[in-house]
Amino acid sequence: MKIEIFDTTLRDGAQGVGVEFSADDKLRVIHVLDRLGVDYIEAGMITDAATAAFFDALGPVQKELTCAKLTVFASTAKVGTDAADDALLAMAAKAPVPAATVYGKAWLWQVTEVLGATAEENLRLIRDSVAFLAASGKEVLFDAEHFFDGWADNPEYAMAVVDAAFEAGASRVILCDTNGGMLPDVVGLVTGAVRKKHDRIGIHCHNDMGMAAACSVAAVLAGAQQVQGTVSGIGERCGNANLNTLIPVLQCKLGFDCIGDRLSSLTAAARAVSDAANLSFDESEPFVGGYAFTHKAGTHIDGVAKRPRSFEHIDPAAVGNERNTVVSGLSGRAAVIDKMRAAFPEERFSKDDPRVLCAAAMIREREAEGFDYEDASASLALVLDEALGVRKSFFRLESLKVIVDEQAQMQAANTGNAFSASAVIKIAVGEREYLTAGEGNGPVNAIDEALRRALLRFYPEIASMHLTDYRVRVLDSRATASAVRVAIESTDGHSVWRTVGVSSDVINASWQALRDSVEYMLKKKSEA
Amino acid sequence: MKIEIFDTTLRDGAQGVGVEFSADDKLRVIHVLDRLGVDYIEAGMITDAATAAFFDALGPVQKELTCAKLTVFASTAKVGTDAADDALLAMAAKAPVPAATVYGKAWLWQVTEVLGATAEENLRLIRDSVAFLAASGKEVLFDAEHFFDGWADNPEYAMAVVDAAFEAGASRVILCDTNGGMLPDVVGLVTGAVRKKHDRIGIHCHNDMGMAAACSVAAVLAGAQQVQGTVSGIGERCGNANLNTLIPVLQCKLGFDCIGDRLSSLTAAARAVSDAANLSFDESEPFVGGYAFTHKAGTHIDGVAKRPRSFEHIDPAAVGNERNTVVSGLSGRAAVIDKMRAAFPEERFSKDDPRVLCAAAMIREREAEGFDYEDASASLALVLDEALGVRKSFFRLESLKVIVDEQAQMQAANTGNAFSASAVIKIAVGEREYLTAGEGNGPVNAIDEALRRALLRFYPEIASMHLTDYRVRVLDSRATASAVRVAIESTDGHSVWRTVGVSSDVINASWQALRDSVEYMLKKKSEA
Repeated sequence: MKIEIFDTTLRDGAQGVGVEFSADDKLRVIHVLDRLGVDYIEAGMITDAATAAFFDALGPVQKELTCAKLTVFASTAKVGTDAADDALLAMAAKAPVPAATVYGKAWLWQVTEVLGATAEENLRLIRDSVAFLAASGKEVLFDAEHFFDGWADNPEYAMAVVDAAFEAGASRVILCDTNGGMLPDVVGLVTGAVRKKHDRIGIHCHNDMGMAAACSVAAVLAGAQQVQGTVSGIGERCGNANLNTLIPVLQCKLGFDCIGDRLSSLTAAARAVSDAANLSFDESEPFVGGYAFTHKAGTHIDGVAKRPRSFEHIDPAAVGNERNTVVSGLSGRAAVIDKMRAAFPEERFSKDDPRVLCAAAMIREREAEGFDYEDASASLALVLDEALGVRKSFFRLESLKVIVDEQAQMQAANTGNAFSASAVIKIAVGEREYLTAGEGNGPVNAIDEALRRALLRFYPEIASMHLTDYRVRVLDSRATASAVRVAIESTDGHSVWRTVGVSSDVINASWQALRDSVEYMLKKKSEA
Repeated sequence: MKIEIFDTTLRDGAQGVGVEFSADDKLRVIHVLDRLGVDYIEAGMITDAATAAFFDALGPVQKELTCAKLTVFASTAKVGTDAADDALLAMAAKAPVPAATVYGKAWLWQVTEVLGATAEENLRLIRDSVAFLAASGKEVLFDAEHFFDGWADNPEYAMAVVDAAFEAGASRVILCDTNGGMLPDVVGLVTGAVRKKHDRIGIHCHNDMGMAAACSVAAVLAGAQQVQGTVSGIGERCGNANLNTLIPVLQCKLGFDCIGDRLSSLTAAARAVSDAANLSFDESEPFVGGYAFTHKAGTHIDGVAKRPRSFEHIDPAAVGNERNTVVSGLSGRAAVIDKMRAAFPEERFSKDDPRVLCAAAMIREREAEGFDYEDASASLALVLDEALGVRKSFFRLESLKVIVDEQAQMQAANTGNAFSASAVIKIAVGEREYLTAGEGNGPVNAIDEALRRALLRFYPEIASMHLTDYRVRVLDSRATASAVRVAIESTDGHSVWRTVGVSSDVINASWQALRDSVEYMLKKKSEA
């Protein structure tokens, strides 16, 4: 049975704090979502000339899409007015997209107390606005705002709102838990009650109880045929129902059809949207996160090697993800063998292979110093190369000096303090030495700059890489003299890798992580 | 009705990628959780001499706790052996804590295929291990691993595992969805079936479907009396059930009693644990996140101003959180007045007092830059002094230079690199200037040293203060050029205070926090 997927990342998702999409970002997201196979993409609300212009350009975009209907979002007309006189509804009606969502209140208490309208006036506004948009030739979906709170308050009125929308020509009515305060059992029961009267019902949940996905599933099991949500669950307050979670749950666990065999592109799509929104991706996100199938406990690593389903509830490949194990004090030799097999697929490694013993000993020693390879697989790959005696030397550091000059006026003003640090670096590649300098906002930035400038003449491919994350952790609490661990994330635009450094000196730890990052990139390029 | 809260942040939570607790961190977390009012705190597993030593020290800690029972985690004895001969079980039995959790397999397929044992041998191991730990005088809880997968595979065997644990003396049997692949309906039905036979059942869910909280609630509604989870849901893969979510859902929405009136300290406790784990706090986390009650949409801001429940499913104060709107910044004026009244108890402040407006504006501006005063009340006190025009100047920074010299050999050896950094500082006190230098392991340590040496001749009381913690956090993921926040904790042996600095340069941010720390100490001494 088909369940429609209605994506509102660009509308409700954009209400999230810190979420912002440029027009270009929106177009990127639209194409990613269409390729993923969603049925509706709510592209925003028209509130001014800029948003109207964005929608005006969507006509040709719609023609390029393979399956998704672009949708414009609108409010019902204002109390005491007609839809035909509403400037915003007129712009929504004119937008060259095939569908429109209009929302109206289904909670009588809100109608009288917040909207300041009578029960009957609210129903009139809903009928009038739905009919107006339908007359423009669009498919009209109606979002019944606060439906579940409204049902608890006055179920007859909440049902009258649904009746009114359908009577006026709505193709779907979506029951919304706008405040996100509902439990799955209640959502299921109420949705079932509405489904006894009406077909073509959708569900729209918020995550204020951490239960938006569970509530949406409960609604589908009670008969809802459309699910609304956002990629990674972004949205106002605690966000919306997470489509990355809902789609595989509905398809893999309950046998519904949402996006068919495009499910295997889910992980890539999730990352692409997160990237367009400039959000940092939550690696522990169900199904699509980098840690979703990452095993750390030794017993789990052993178990999953023997029988995947012993510690994996689905095959990660079904959603385009993959299994991973982390090497740490908590995992044993099995994890090291796992990593070595992945790094050197042509080789055979047994538990007693001296190379495995050597690598395990090296990792243990580094971990005792404070290194953590759990989330630094690029640094780990270099350690494994070293244990196998195949680590290549791409460059040597001859000397490195960093000078930081803080002016007294910087006490007060944080602005305009660009390039407070400079680094002087001398590296050697083979017989050739090269001395250069870099400057930056702070010492690490300056070293990064200097190292890249020094290496660029030897390895032009360095130009394509840059750092995307930098984290510092103090390893114990003996204050500034204690050891720090620096973790760095880098990218060349295609792949992402992470490295680590440890020292009592944050500059030295940063240097180690930077050096590993560059070396790993050069190693990969030389192997390609 | 009471529902027990069993926290496993320090055990299952520590399985999360990137999660690491030092022994000091663990003690901090134990006290935070006890003050929050949880019933059990699983403090870890004993696997070696270091973890045994940590548990040995918990005897006096347990005596200080107000309500929580510290718990040690252990595996059943190995196949074909007796619990009495198991070195790890012996260490668990000896640990000076009142409770132990032992886990064993409840999924027959795993018993034969992964563990390599017969059905009966597994039951014997469970009985033997539970009885052995119970004989040591501990309360013994039994974690039935893979219980729900086991029930689907062979319900009689899964039930036989529960029977065996109770027969051997377990006080509670916890049904575990170890792989996190279950839906709430299934968890509810199966828990209900077990409850028909047994009292004293707990639930332990993982979040691989984004439904750990919903599954846990379903189990409680079906009769489970204990809920296991972690703070912020940290844990392996997609994490565990999130206690920050579960506790308010069970108490506020369903009327169970979990932690009574300590619920209002939930938000502070969640942040304290996240901080101890050095994790970045997810502000969109239900109930406790900074965005959980933050309104961005104009209609929502209007609605909530008229009637809070129009867009808030609970009163944020119930969980110690507060309402925010994006337009007015993250801190409301009421919070500022609160702080000013605490700092200047003899003064009276109204909402329209120009000093309140000025302080609120300053804090808002600083917060927009990335400052966070929640855990930096010493820096906040200085900001309030400034707003009131009473901030004293104890010293001025005339110049500060830092030189870091990394030798090439430090690439390889991390040891013996003492004093790699030196700082040259010139400060002025009144008309007098003083130039001095300091050296240290890294630039921040060198600045700290230089500043203290420079000030000592003017303020001998400086000798009694030293730093006790230093933390760095990158504020967004635009890598080394992005802003960092440095948080510092200092002590004079009697009291502890915390300060904060923000800059694109880690050295400058550290300087701000160091300066505030010293200034706050001098202010306090001058007021004493």
